[in-house]
Amino acid sequence: MGLITETSLRAMLGSGRGLPNPFPIGAEDRVTPAAADFLKDRRIGLRRIAPGREAGALIPVGVSNRHVHLSPSHVEVLFGRGSRLHSLRELSQKGQFAAQETVTLVGPKGEIPGVRVLGPSRGVTQVEISQTDGRQLGVAPAVRLSGDLAGTPGILIRGPAGAVVLSEGLIVARNHVHLSTDDAARLSVQHGDRLLLQSLGDRPIVFADATARVDERFSLDFHIDTDEANAAFLRTGDVVRLVGINMNIADLFRERQT
Amino acid sequence: MGLITETSLRAMLGSGRGLPNPFPIGAEDRVTPAAADFLKDRRIGLRRIAPGREAGALIPVGVSNRHVHLSPSHVEVLFGRGSRLHSLRELSQKGQFAAQETVTLVGPKGEIPGVRVLGPSRGVTQVEISQTDGRQLGVAPAVRLSGDLAGTPGILIRGPAGAVVLSEGLIVARNHVHLSTDDAARLSVQHGDRLLLQSLGDRPIVFADATARVDERFSLDFHIDTDEANAAFLRTGDVVRLVGINMNIADLFRERQT
Repeated sequence: MGLITETSLRAMLGSGRGLPNPFPIGAEDRVTPAAADFLKDRRIGLRRIAPGREAGALIPVGVSNRHVHLSPSHVEVLFGRGSRLHSLRELSQKGQFAAQETVTLVGPKGEIPGVRVLGPSRGVTQVEISQTDGRQLGVAPAVRLSGDLAGTPGILIRGPAGAVVLSEGLIVARNHVHLSTDDAARLSVQHGDRLLLQSLGDRPIVFADATARVDERFSLDFHIDTDEANAAFLRTGDVVRLVGINMNIADLFRERQT
Repeated sequence: MGLITETSLRAMLGSGRGLPNPFPIGAEDRVTPAAADFLKDRRIGLRRIAPGREAGALIPVGVSNRHVHLSPSHVEVLFGRGSRLHSLRELSQKGQFAAQETVTLVGPKGEIPGVRVLGPSRGVTQVEISQTDGRQLGVAPAVRLSGDLAGTPGILIRGPAGAVVLSEGLIVARNHVHLSTDDAARLSVQHGDRLLLQSLGDRPIVFADATARVDERFSLDFHIDTDEANAAFLRTGDVVRLVGINMNIADLFRERQT
């Protein structure tokens, strides 16, 4: 392609999809003066995308099984006064670990024992399950990013020393990509971007809305749950390909057709 | 876009992705004489795609739980001499039914009782499970289209009157779209096409390689298994959007970048 004109921008606007801000342009794209003015008038910046980087970059997959994050006080309720979590093994994100401790989740229809606690303990208790787990428990949590717990269902957590009735905090985790600041710069990704990621195995699925989470402490990792892993035939250590940033696939197809 | 040139075709070929045959062109696309010759020399036909039809068409979803198709002789082994299947309810595809009969699947690591038999009985016995089921049974079948059973693993099927040791026939079903001949014409889809289908709910996934199966007896239906349904938050009766035919998403993105 290469040439971004005012006409093509107006066509994008007219199609109802709006213009991303900043507007991504490839290294070989050219923007006509009229198109540049058009963007400037709308206070839309330009974002240069390094060629051949973002398209095709491979991102390692981390499959998250059901797990629980506990507040310090809930650790004590579940495992006894003065208890703390003990690391079983380190996780891909620095400082995070799978704890030796496990709990039982109890829902209206069933329970799931042996659910791993992740450490270290954090401010608010949060339970992450798959939709398959939800069927077994008899609950139907929404898809949420970690920490976004307002209005989510509760659940009962049972430990060896006691139980916690959580009034909210049960989620199915929204898939997301952890990126270090360096990864983000290298891949031209910004915090909050929506990434399109293509699985490369026997079940070619595209994850069309993976949220980018950028932090200097993060390691590059695409986090999905077991349902998503099974649907795409992915395992921890496999890779997916970054095929787009902040793009709607239906729009891509329409562009090609008209 | 609109203009298909010999240069753009050579670029497609050069990228290693090959050219689809027939080559799809939108109603507003123009093909230069050189490009038309280029395609003709390679015996590649042109396929006009009706505008605004294929892109955006909604296709109903049918979620397939684990199930078994049985040969007539296996029906007798499992349910007794002279037995036949009894319809419990009709399925979306004409003439197909969920039978009252169920069996138990027995694998190296576990078993799953109450697995529905689908009728009518057919030539060869075939067992379709999800990857999640496979973990429970201790087997890892490949993703296959129905009927493509060469080299697939076996499984033990237990019924009330006997058991069948299947030496092959266990698959995870490849997702596919049933289309009537009329549906296919309306959507410009041909038998064997690979469809890109976008889920529209809380987990926007694109199924990037759904096989089109066209038959005059078929009803429009996108068949996925329970893992795929959970990963996309889809249920039977939901719809997905057809966003492309025989296209590679990574290519779409590259086109936009360069």
